[in-house]
Amino acid sequence: MSKITPRTLSGFMELLPAPQQQMEQFLQILRETYELYGFTPLDTPLIESSEILLAKGGGDTEKQIYRFQKGDADLALRFDLTVPLAKYVAMHAGELCFPFRRYQIGKVYRGERAQRGRFREFYQADIDIIGDGKLDIANEAEIPAVIYSTFTRLGLQRFAIRVNNRKILNGFYAMLGLTEQAGDVMRTVDKLDKVGADNIRTMLIEAVGLNAETADEILRFISISGSNSEVMEKLNAYRGRNELFDLGLDELATVVKYLGAFGVPETHFAVDLTIARGLDYYTGTVYETTMLDHPEIGSICSGGRYDNLAEYYTERQLPGVGISIGVTRLFYVLQEQGMLNSDLPTAPADVLILPMTEDLTEAASAATYLRAQGIRTQLYTEPRKMKGKLGYADKLRIPYVAFLGEDEIAAGKITIRNMVDGGQETVSVSDAAELIQSGLKAHAGGKLILG
Amino acid sequence: MSKITPRTLSGFMELLPAPQQQMEQFLQILRETYELYGFTPLDTPLIESSEILLAKGGGDTEKQIYRFQKGDADLALRFDLTVPLAKYVAMHAGELCFPFRRYQIGKVYRGERAQRGRFREFYQADIDIIGDGKLDIANEAEIPAVIYSTFTRLGLQRFAIRVNNRKILNGFYAMLGLTEQAGDVMRTVDKLDKVGADNIRTMLIEAVGLNAETADEILRFISISGSNSEVMEKLNAYRGRNELFDLGLDELATVVKYLGAFGVPETHFAVDLTIARGLDYYTGTVYETTMLDHPEIGSICSGGRYDNLAEYYTERQLPGVGISIGVTRLFYVLQEQGMLNSDLPTAPADVLILPMTEDLTEAASAATYLRAQGIRTQLYTEPRKMKGKLGYADKLRIPYVAFLGEDEIAAGKITIRNMVDGGQETVSVSDAAELIQSGLKAHAGGKLILG
Repeated sequence: MSKITPRTLSGFMELLPAPQQQMEQFLQILRETYELYGFTPLDTPLIESSEILLAKGGGDTEKQIYRFQKGDADLALRFDLTVPLAKYVAMHAGELCFPFRRYQIGKVYRGERAQRGRFREFYQADIDIIGDGKLDIANEAEIPAVIYSTFTRLGLQRFAIRVNNRKILNGFYAMLGLTEQAGDVMRTVDKLDKVGADNIRTMLIEAVGLNAETADEILRFISISGSNSEVMEKLNAYRGRNELFDLGLDELATVVKYLGAFGVPETHFAVDLTIARGLDYYTGTVYETTMLDHPEIGSICSGGRYDNLAEYYTERQLPGVGISIGVTRLFYVLQEQGMLNSDLPTAPADVLILPMTEDLTEAASAATYLRAQGIRTQLYTEPRKMKGKLGYADKLRIPYVAFLGEDEIAAGKITIRNMVDGGQETVSVSDAAELIQSGLKAHAGGKLILG
Repeated sequence: MSKITPRTLSGFMELLPAPQQQMEQFLQILRETYELYGFTPLDTPLIESSEILLAKGGGDTEKQIYRFQKGDADLALRFDLTVPLAKYVAMHAGELCFPFRRYQIGKVYRGERAQRGRFREFYQADIDIIGDGKLDIANEAEIPAVIYSTFTRLGLQRFAIRVNNRKILNGFYAMLGLTEQAGDVMRTVDKLDKVGADNIRTMLIEAVGLNAETADEILRFISISGSNSEVMEKLNAYRGRNELFDLGLDELATVVKYLGAFGVPETHFAVDLTIARGLDYYTGTVYETTMLDHPEIGSICSGGRYDNLAEYYTERQLPGVGISIGVTRLFYVLQEQGMLNSDLPTAPADVLILPMTEDLTEAASAATYLRAQGIRTQLYTEPRKMKGKLGYADKLRIPYVAFLGEDEIAAGKITIRNMVDGGQETVSVSDAAELIQSGLKAHAGGKLILG
């Protein structure tokens, strides 16, 4: 029979077992952290009607979407988790309690040009808090705490949560009489990190058509920095000139005020007036999160406050605030940078039982006992030389091997070898369970991300 | 703006938050149980090249598959987890350790006719053990233990694991000189439960064309029942007439022999000679699992031993044994039958903090403290009457509410109300944490499935 060469599509992540174990830990930490903050899990279909997914339409979405017919139906794969959330909340609004706090971790699809580190299938991990008609600013103040907890629990230390407020930006540009050019200005200013202030100034004058004073005023504004209280003080100097600006500044002050109480240290937080996060969706606080040692990666967790989640599906006003982590890309980058902790266990089992008699009754009983104690147990029954069996445990990094021969069976015992230090003891199966459990506990607790 | 009616495609399960919490518990128990047995998690793409997925082709697969073009690529959504596993093992055989034990829980797609309780997108939860060239029979003996643990941990009590061996069937039909008709006979015999022995006899004679004695001999054979030892004894009477039969009987004897040691009580296990599980794939032990009170549902966990997982992709002989649970359908049935334990917590949080002062600093600090203790905490900050706030907690079944007013803040305390019994205490935040944790512990431990 002629064979078909097995392959995985380019742009689709498929991990070997050990990195997959790391990915599972990653996802598990996200789930646990999101749940600590009172978000409930949702799971929506991968496939939706194209009409639903493309209700907003436009831009890259239509180009990148995976869209197809099945029978008469015009279907597509979701390209984010926000549109399915909008549909869900619009559909089920009568059955939900508001504010509705949900998380969803799932795969989304974008047929982008294949490129190293770009994925066509990737996990997003989103949280959103949706209000019915209105949503208190305290929810915007709580989001940095979720971001901080998430990355700290993952083990990342050197990162910054950067925050801005769209009302401040829009109010500021209105002050300067630039409401119409605000979009162009924000798109230009967004490049500050990449091209530097001088180039921004030139672009504002030459491409956007501002005069030199206005360009300088913008540059002065976006370069406001310092401690949170210094930044707030400098921003307060602009008060009284535009109502929207003042409102945005009040909101930002609230976010900054509660940071400490929500457990976010000032070291990991910065007001950054260059952040805008797109032009037509966010209306209040916006968030980006950057790795201090890898600014080239861009934001690893972004989001913000919006006023109208589901305007394409319902008249109901559904404001919200949310953030999203692009898990697959972040995991890929961490792998590439060697930042995943290779000391964490990736073995499929805690102990490998090697029966040394033909009859497997005692070995099976030992396995059953150990599993009942919560110990992940494999029984190795293939006919193979001892060296091969130990090599199997070694290669999979299974920390304990248990030998069960005639002597052990006669004595009602089992011989446990610690595969790390080679230490070996012959003990009862229940003592073996305790030995394994305390050994596992002693090696637990490392964080997934280094640095 | 005209609105698009929000809708979810028919045949796609989308749950409200409370049942979604139950589904998450379901999936979590599957993951934990599979891991106890030393299976490592895998995650493969939802989309594969059509050439890969349709390598075997034929039958319903080609009709039901979701297949589409993207650019030049002919793509399709996976319709099971076995084909992607075959591809994975063929691709990565050099990097895997054998026997390779993996589990995968993921969505698969079949464009079946929409029908109540039939899903086009559904979760499968598979385990497989793949050998390199050969695989010991002990692995087949271990599978009933995984099935038994899985359903017992879920809470299901009244179920039976039904086991047969394809070698016994093929050997038996060879004894009767029916090797060519074996397929027709097995398809007929498979209907025994539905149509009864008399009808089977008529069909064997009239449709398959057997003579009356042969039909009777088949009926005598498939009706062999009793305790495991009785069944084995009756089967032993057929020994010595066909080599394949004898080999199959040895295998079945091994599976039966180790049941007890693997923790499977005889009450939950039955040799059932009517089970065949399709005709061209399985070659040894085959498994079905039925709910005793709901035989109409059919098998809720099936699988078996196969000799050649990846024959379409590689010359390498990869025998294996595996089982699959159709999670979405099973969950749906359990819901319909009222068999999901509604006492289990489905709340998005363990405690809801209700700040009663304008300043939220203390409330945020309390939330941060409780979360650090692992307590899932929501902070409710919407301006609403107390009744509405308590109604929110009540409707979501959040078990504790914490009030934080000026008196509490002045005293460095918090008032905790138990939403079930209405009991209320004003204590320090650390005592509140202990109170909540011990309350949660006291109510934990229920099983997901009743009966």
